[in-house]
Amino acid sequence: MAPTDAIHPVATGRAAETVAQHQDPQDLTFYSGWFSPFSQRVWIALEEKGIPYQYKEVDPYKREEHFLRINPKGLVPAVEYRGKAIYESLVLLEFLEDAYPSYKPNLLPSDPYERARQRIWIDHISKTIIPASMRLTMTQPNEQEKLKTARNEFYEALRKLQDEIKGPYFAGEQFTLVDVVIAPWVSRDYVSAEHRGFKREDVGDGWAKYAKAIETRDSVLRTTSERDKVQVMYDKYLRGEAQSEAAKAIRAGRPIP
Amino acid sequence: MAPTDAIHPVATGRAAETVAQHQDPQDLTFYSGWFSPFSQRVWIALEEKGIPYQYKEVDPYKREEHFLRINPKGLVPAVEYRGKAIYESLVLLEFLEDAYPSYKPNLLPSDPYERARQRIWIDHISKTIIPASMRLTMTQPNEQEKLKTARNEFYEALRKLQDEIKGPYFAGEQFTLVDVVIAPWVSRDYVSAEHRGFKREDVGDGWAKYAKAIETRDSVLRTTSERDKVQVMYDKYLRGEAQSEAAKAIRAGRPIP
Ligand SMILES: N[C@@H](CCC(=O)N[C@@H](CS)C(=O)NCC(=O)O)C(=O)O
Ligand SMILES: N[C@@H](CCC(=O)N[C@@H](CS)C(=O)NCC(=O)O)C(=O)O
Repeated sequence: MAPTDAIHPVATGRAAETVAQHQDPQDLTFYSGWFSPFSQRVWIALEEKGIPYQYKEVDPYKREEHFLRINPKGLVPAVEYRGKAIYESLVLLEFLEDAYPSYKPNLLPSDPYERARQRIWIDHISKTIIPASMRLTMTQPNEQEKLKTARNEFYEALRKLQDEIKGPYFAGEQFTLVDVVIAPWVSRDYVSAEHRGFKREDVGDGWAKYAKAIETRDSVLRTTSERDKVQVMYDKYLRGEAQSEAAKAIRAGRPIP
Repeated sequence: MAPTDAIHPVATGRAAETVAQHQDPQDLTFYSGWFSPFSQRVWIALEEKGIPYQYKEVDPYKREEHFLRINPKGLVPAVEYRGKAIYESLVLLEFLEDAYPSYKPNLLPSDPYERARQRIWIDHISKTIIPASMRLTMTQPNEQEKLKTARNEFYEALRKLQDEIKGPYFAGEQFTLVDVVIAPWVSRDYVSAEHRGFKREDVGDGWAKYAKAIETRDSVLRTTSERDKVQVMYDKYLRGEAQSEAAKAIRAGRPIP
């Protein structure tokens, strides 16, 4: 492995402070990769709601036995809750709403129709925005036409969401699950800005404003590591050599796991 | 279009009786394709819970204006609930639980951990079982090696679920959301059995027993049309010529919509 491929072992910056505050055993153990956008979703929700949790760093690429017993897929995030294992970031977000109803704010509205709207747009993020974001990062800049297509597909996917934003957040004044689910991709979009010609303003003014509101949210800042450490994680994607399950799925034309 | 490509316009058999019983306007209008496995999920839940609904048949391939105003993606199922539009089968299933809490049975358990387990396995059905099922149907039988691979991938995906089944249903005696979500693919598996060498027993005895329990469930039978009419819907898939959004996605190596 080239030196840039080494994963920095622990969170840095604001995220490191948050980790330090969550070392004591609790009902809920949070298995996370400090660099992982899927983990950050759950981390943001835990921080928003003030749920007591113990943070445990996992390097999912090591596929350690103890962790495979918690998530047989070997992916972060995962949670152990009173001895029971749960994984999949979206499942975990719903779980936190179900298991900690008295911890405010509720990230899902109580109205059944509004809950359905949240889930429709979360589905759009999962099926359209994230695969498009990964394809853009993995497209090589010398393939000019492909790059343009990938960028436009990403813009189109973001614009669909943009059209639904009430402002400042998706559902208005309240920060809700849709915001949590997209936040880690918003706060890392400087990677495609620096290397793939992505511009928030080219999505639309509404998007640029929304992205600003998301990336400056306290729970997002408190779970974000130093930019240069994060950047290293993307080098393999940018070279088209990433070996994560998600990267392999994108190349094979399969749903990302 | 060859004559076999014409979609039979309405439900037949037991499903036609159920349609006839649900013609009156209600708070909830159910837009469904009688042939659609995704629609059948929602239909099964409506029937299980005894929720009052008006059935409206939609041919999604016609992309009619009035329906695109309800679901801009143009896919069935969709629901209009007191004038508000909702779509995506999994979102709709959660919606029915949220909006009709007093209509029994609850298809999601009340325990937060058990709810999470349901959602983990529903995610497995969406990301792994259904794409594998579609790839098997779309693989041409003269491509022997590919067919074998596709069949094994489908078996592997089903076995993972099989290992979690308490019996007779996923969660034990109670029929729950995981059963609802997989049911339409179980009750249509004769297509790959007749044309792609699929055998329930080759998944495992546990699967064969489970499949029997699912396909003989009353709500499944009451929403099932005549076999020869369903079979016609698969001719295009079996010839590898299907033009549904899902078929195009599988061919392009994209997540199915
Ligand atoms: N669908 C999963 C995806 C989780 C995921 O892909 N996590 C990445 C880190 S961001 C991982 O653990 N990768 C390790 C690997 O691909 O081997 C979720 O939403 O939690
Ligand atoms: N993810 C959607 C999928 C719905 C879907 O693909 N429906 C099919 C019928 S089974 C459809 O409307 N196809 C029309 C088309 O592909 O144009 C859901 O779960 O509701």
